[in-house]
Amino acid sequence: MTYCLAIKVNSGMVFASDSRTNAGMDHINTYSKMYAFDMPGERCFVLLSAGNLATTQAVINLIERDIERKAKLSLNTVTHLFEAADYIGNLNCEVQRHHSGAGQRSGVNLETTFILGGQIGTQAHELLLIYPEGNYISAPPSKPYLQIGEIKYGKPILDRVVRPETSLGDAARCSLVSLDSTMRSNVSVGAPFELAIYETGSLHLEHRMLLDVDDPLYVDVQQIWNKTLMDGINALPQFDWETELHHH
Amino acid sequence: MTYCLAIKVNSGMVFASDSRTNAGMDHINTYSKMYAFDMPGERCFVLLSAGNLATTQAVINLIERDIERKAKLSLNTVTHLFEAADYIGNLNCEVQRHHSGAGQRSGVNLETTFILGGQIGTQAHELLLIYPEGNYISAPPSKPYLQIGEIKYGKPILDRVVRPETSLGDAARCSLVSLDSTMRSNVSVGAPFELAIYETGSLHLEHRMLLDVDDPLYVDVQQIWNKTLMDGINALPQFDWETELHHH
Repeated sequence: MTYCLAIKVNSGMVFASDSRTNAGMDHINTYSKMYAFDMPGERCFVLLSAGNLATTQAVINLIERDIERKAKLSLNTVTHLFEAADYIGNLNCEVQRHHSGAGQRSGVNLETTFILGGQIGTQAHELLLIYPEGNYISAPPSKPYLQIGEIKYGKPILDRVVRPETSLGDAARCSLVSLDSTMRSNVSVGAPFELAIYETGSLHLEHRMLLDVDDPLYVDVQQIWNKTLMDGINALPQFDWETELHHH
Repeated sequence: MTYCLAIKVNSGMVFASDSRTNAGMDHINTYSKMYAFDMPGERCFVLLSAGNLATTQAVINLIERDIERKAKLSLNTVTHLFEAADYIGNLNCEVQRHHSGAGQRSGVNLETTFILGGQIGTQAHELLLIYPEGNYISAPPSKPYLQIGEIKYGKPILDRVVRPETSLGDAARCSLVSLDSTMRSNVSVGAPFELAIYETGSLHLEHRMLLDVDDPLYVDVQQIWNKTLMDGINALPQFDWETELHHH
């Protein structure tokens, strides 16, 4: 399993992903699920992936080849973010179709879902979710985040904290807590975590971090967050019956 | 959908449930999913249910009938909590078997899952999860809680807060937050919420509450909790790159 999320706030975007990939219990590996493509000063894209690893890698290879070959249609030539999503969606479908005969015979699921975030020139920065079928949706304005993979454990904190006016720092801290909560509740999601920060208008992905479980910042986040929740629960209103409790 | 949870701490047990029941989008109702059976001073049981409503009601009817009839085997005669689980598991299987022909034809899922908590005399208080197949497991000692239904959204807070030494008040507050997080993330889980508190050794379910969304205590819990998380995220360590951010 996988957990990736992206948050869009007014001042930028945060991308976060785990790195655990498995094919059965005996074949657990660490792969990056975050891919960045930027032409500094012109455009910047970030892709997050969840699903079949072979499909993902094939799509990334094709994206890179089209850029190298200066193809008519590539991430360097699209004029809107939705065109980039359409292009990636088509590649995704092509790759799945190419292997669909063998996939059906063996019962393997070839699907991959992507989150695409980016900005082109002076257009607005945007987040899109690209389905395995090649179609796509944008992040809802009121809850400006997208998730793929094992999404439920890490959703409540996003619902409570993320707003368009949230700072990039808070959005990044929130994404770390969301990843940490997921990893604690589901063994198939694992560190190291990747974090990338895009600042609106920068047209360049400036800040990327790889955080392993023993990274001092990550250890601090875990410890402080646990204490915040413990203290926070204790600070909620008392029930009437608490004064009546017997004390054994 | 449904969300029920039960927490066992040294000083007692907390039972919590939502009340939304639906059969399609047009048939949404409110039903209690919490059933209490006690012989004060002798024994006390609480049942939470998730699954087919007809199966649940049939099982509850049979439990009550056996008590009324003073049957040889009933919740009033079992000598251990696991025997109560076994008895309820058998009733659950019987009811499903009785309707299985028609159920298979119409494709309806007749399964119900129960959480059983209770205490008999001087024995230890205990929580058991009863599967639709009639077998059962106890709550793990290190994470002493059980959940049924839509369980993922409300799990991280339990994993971070609940320990055997947690107070009953904190366990109850934590269960409210867990329910609230689930309701915010999944529209099929809804208020009013039921909450019941069992104090170890009391052999009687003393405290039961029904909390609707406009209950002042519940409104307070939501507002204070939202602020706790917002402030908590902001209080986590700053990233190096935050000082470099341009301020648009």
